Amino acid sequence: MIILGIDPGYAIVGWGVIEKLNNGKCRVIDYGSIDTDKDMSFPERLYKIKMGTKSLLNAFNPDVLAIEELFFNTNITTAIKVAQARGLIVEEAFEKGVQIFEYTPLQIKQGLTGYGRAEKKQIQYMTKVLLNLKSVPKPDDTADALAVALTHAQTNNFLKSNLME
Amino acid sequence: MIILGIDPGYAIVGWGVIEKLNNGKCRVIDYGSIDTDKDMSFPERLYKIKMGTKSLLNAFNPDVLAIEELFFNTNITTAIKVAQARGLIVEEAFEKGVQIFEYTPLQIKQGLTGYGRAEKKQIQYMTKVLLNLKSVPKPDDTADALAVALTHAQTNNFLKSNLME
Repeated sequence: MIILGIDPGYAIVGWGVIEKLNNGKCRVIDYGSIDTDKDMSFPERLYKIKMGTKSLLNAFNPDVLAIEELFFNTNITTAIKVAQARGLIVEEAFEKGVQIFEYTPLQIKQGLTGYGRAEKKQIQYMTKVLLNLKSVPKPDDTADALAVALTHAQTNNFLKSNLME
Repeated sequence: MIILGIDPGYAIVGWGVIEKLNNGKCRVIDYGSIDTDKDMSFPERLYKIKMGTKSLLNAFNPDVLAIEELFFNTNITTAIKVAQARGLIVEEAFEKGVQIFEYTPLQIKQGLTGYGRAEKKQIQYMTKVLLNLKSVPKPDDTADALAVALTHAQTNNFLKSNLME
């Protein structure tokens, strides 16, 4: 099973592609980020994110998109921009027939460390270990994308409670 | 100049198409709504909204998309869903080469009634009068879409302060 993990954003969209092997372990296939320049208009940034997502879906042909659920308590303006970019990513995956699952930050923390209040550093450490990486991928958005992909891999796939409704 | 006005949403996307004539007056071309069923998954709703937007852009070939800016003080969950749909609409317009302008509820009220604290009924009344309609279009989302299109028509187009950056 090929899983594309996405950490949504509008300046940086982190992505990571992993394969869950038959023995239950995971191997990393590739990771990176879609970056948009602050000098671009917002609609142009959305366009670049859509095209980047399309390329990822075509290049890796994932079975699953695992994406962070959006929670915002602070900056509503940022939240609305991130959400606009996220809509494009989710729609592209849907159109390609990819199953979409979403995970909250709490679920990611619990999934990878067993502890819902784990620090970012602990999540990054577990991501590095589970994927047998030499170092934590940069930027953080990319590490976060691999973490949400791993969370899906470690979740019982018969329990589809996180399927995006 | 053909203006497509959009009131973004995920259950109902209101739309209205008007033409600004050389004499400065406006005539209505068509209006309606893209509706998505609550039984659909959210990604499927996004897909339907994207396809509906594409159809509108192809059918009416607008010069301008005038769209409401999102402001939310209350329900953040709703805000994030509406924003995801809005991102798709904006991106489709950008991809088609349509200029995109956004207006706040305050700008729409001031643009149509000269009064920033106008009631919804007053906005709807002015929309009906300015477009020479027999009645206020239903649902409210459609009337709101025509109102934002009219706001653009009545704004000095050389002042591009509302161009979406």
